[in-house]
Amino acid sequence: MGSGRMRPVRSALQALNPAEIAGVLSALPLPERLLLWEMVDHEDDGEVLLHLPEEIRADLVQRMDTVELVKAAGDLEIDDLADLIDGLPETVTRQVMQALSAADRARLEAVLAYEADSAGGLMNTDIVTVRADVTLEVVVRYLRLRGDLPLHTDALFVVDRYGSYLGTLSLERVLTRDPESTVAEVMDRELEALHVDLPADEVARQFANSDLVSAPVVTRDGRRLVGRITIDDVVDVIRAEGEKTFLSMGGLRGEEDLFAPVGKAARRRAVWLGINLMTAFIASYVVGLFEVTISEVVALAVLMPVVASMGGIGGSQTLTLMIRGLALKQVGDGNTATLLRKEVLVALINGLLWAVAVAAIAWLWFGSGKLSLVIAMALVINQTIASLAGIFVPLTLERIGVDPALAGSVVLTTVTDVVGFFSLLGLGALILM
Amino acid sequence: MGSGRMRPVRSALQALNPAEIAGVLSALPLPERLLLWEMVDHEDDGEVLLHLPEEIRADLVQRMDTVELVKAAGDLEIDDLADLIDGLPETVTRQVMQALSAADRARLEAVLAYEADSAGGLMNTDIVTVRADVTLEVVVRYLRLRGDLPLHTDALFVVDRYGSYLGTLSLERVLTRDPESTVAEVMDRELEALHVDLPADEVARQFANSDLVSAPVVTRDGRRLVGRITIDDVVDVIRAEGEKTFLSMGGLRGEEDLFAPVGKAARRRAVWLGINLMTAFIASYVVGLFEVTISEVVALAVLMPVVASMGGIGGSQTLTLMIRGLALKQVGDGNTATLLRKEVLVALINGLLWAVAVAAIAWLWFGSGKLSLVIAMALVINQTIASLAGIFVPLTLERIGVDPALAGSVVLTTVTDVVGFFSLLGLGALILM
Repeated sequence: MGSGRMRPVRSALQALNPAEIAGVLSALPLPERLLLWEMVDHEDDGEVLLHLPEEIRADLVQRMDTVELVKAAGDLEIDDLADLIDGLPETVTRQVMQALSAADRARLEAVLAYEADSAGGLMNTDIVTVRADVTLEVVVRYLRLRGDLPLHTDALFVVDRYGSYLGTLSLERVLTRDPESTVAEVMDRELEALHVDLPADEVARQFANSDLVSAPVVTRDGRRLVGRITIDDVVDVIRAEGEKTFLSMGGLRGEEDLFAPVGKAARRRAVWLGINLMTAFIASYVVGLFEVTISEVVALAVLMPVVASMGGIGGSQTLTLMIRGLALKQVGDGNTATLLRKEVLVALINGLLWAVAVAAIAWLWFGSGKLSLVIAMALVINQTIASLAGIFVPLTLERIGVDPALAGSVVLTTVTDVVGFFSLLGLGALILM
Repeated sequence: MGSGRMRPVRSALQALNPAEIAGVLSALPLPERLLLWEMVDHEDDGEVLLHLPEEIRADLVQRMDTVELVKAAGDLEIDDLADLIDGLPETVTRQVMQALSAADRARLEAVLAYEADSAGGLMNTDIVTVRADVTLEVVVRYLRLRGDLPLHTDALFVVDRYGSYLGTLSLERVLTRDPESTVAEVMDRELEALHVDLPADEVARQFANSDLVSAPVVTRDGRRLVGRITIDDVVDVIRAEGEKTFLSMGGLRGEEDLFAPVGKAARRRAVWLGINLMTAFIASYVVGLFEVTISEVVALAVLMPVVASMGGIGGSQTLTLMIRGLALKQVGDGNTATLLRKEVLVALINGLLWAVAVAAIAWLWFGSGKLSLVIAMALVINQTIASLAGIFVPLTLERIGVDPALAGSVVLTTVTDVVGFFSLLGLGALILM
């Protein structure tokens, strides 16, 4: 480790910020990752851990001893520390707690009392408050005496003697308004406080909608100011959410390490493959109902992939729009009928268009007008059903509490496979035999 | 419009902020949308337009007359105005320009000179600068004289007499440090300025990595300070990027209106269905090579969906990890080999596992040991090739400049369909006939 060969690596590391170091670590296979992790400046340990994907973080934390952990934890802000502690074993958590000052411990406990993905879990408790009846001049004197403000402080919060939230006083106003004015005259009363148990995705939406940089957080009853949420944590929420949806569309759950050990990765993905196997056998079963038909008209088996795949793509287009619409709360009882009409019409138009193309190709290939008719009809039927499934599958999944982004695609393709095969082979049995 | 029935709608609208109004508009079918749009307070028009998806915005803008547009544009910040103007017809743009003050027009032209998705396109030019040699006391006096600062100003920028960027002076430091100190003593020299032509996604990464709220932007040669980027615009970039990747995975390009007119939606999606049809016929062609085999052993046709679908899912899992890894720049020449080894091993393990299950089911179903052997071998082969495709398809697409998130899935399933059918039917021909 201390060998001369490693020196250039160390100095290269020093030029990177913690997020960049975390990026490099995630891009390394396990042995190299552990080697590099040893070389990270211990002062940066905490920040680097925070920027790592959950799975990699948990793995590295497991390999650290308590002394290292306590040290890494010591340099973090309270809300970040709460995130880190979330994954630690009970005994280590207790030791980290003991290493904190009484005030910090109380703050940490306050944050840990809430769900990690709620306003309470995201907030910092290091708020700077002022009273409404003092003048700006007094505020300036107070700030100067106080010294450095917590990171990302762009505003002070105004409270009454009971700690109730009254309004927000931006640093900008402190600096630009008449020093003789009172806080009450200058403060912004419009900025509404967030409740501690507001879900993280709702917090993110409010930040984006109102272009906030920081926001006050109040107790459940809306009375007492308990903390503030800053935009840097909200950016993390937005990124993590996008990440989660993206991965779940690919049949992966949560954050997966690109270099997870083979056994672990295989185990985790096996479940999804197993679920898919069951649905694939449903499609097989439908095909099996028509063994006689296929043995007589083998061309039907040849055309099976076309009907199945076109239905899958058409349905996915509708499904994707629906998943996004549901996430943005743009889809509800009020507009489902309109949406349905539109998507079915789109499917019919495209179904008819491509049915003609497919029929022409089938006719050139197999020279049977009847077969062309069968595949064309099957295609139109399947595209139409696919659009219906694209609407109703996500609506139903959401109603029963299953994430449509995760399960929607598997359910949808099962429907389009089954309907596609059934209509192709069924019509084939009726018309061609 | 002015009828009494509409009054409750109007007052409900007034309780919403522009982003929320935009959300409601997007969730409405076209006729209702136009009706509600008429009722939006004209002062909010500009902000509401900005929060709408591109397609809906373009549609509404087309329906506005120039006077309305000029008015809507007038209330916006320069960087937001630049976004809006991007979609306007030339003549309207000119009229909007003329309605601006000379100073604002110069600022707008400065922003419009850059690509919309670069630092230059994202920036605002309303920066507040100070000199390094004055004291904080002078800065405070200057700010008080100046009055309100631009929205989201959390820091002033320090420049020399030639306008070169020297450092950043946060409002926090202005308030908390000794008034006698000079700006040079107190300012932060570490915050690096962004170049005007830095791509938007790179800007977003730097904001996230360094937890920035605002950042200075300098000319290409790094010399002159020209603007600043604030976090609210970066949050929009992050959201839009996630959106784009998500939609393209579903075979939809760009922002699509949930309620786009049927003809438009059908036309746009037809292209993707057409591309998919060609790839589906490649799979069909492979099946067609084995017509004789299928007519003899129909069970092979019955099992086709199982092999194809399992390969598709397995490959997608690898593909999803790769697309994310490429986007986060975690995948490169240095670790492709390690990744390949891991993914192939995972595929082999799961391939073998589920091959045993599939073979058992096939044996129960068709009672043929040889058939079970064929499907098991085909499954293992296809899962392995699927994992290879999951690695090499996105790498190749990226190398030739095609977005792997858009095209990866179609190419991958073509590979897994072709390999799956070929190995199932080919092995069937060899072993069963």
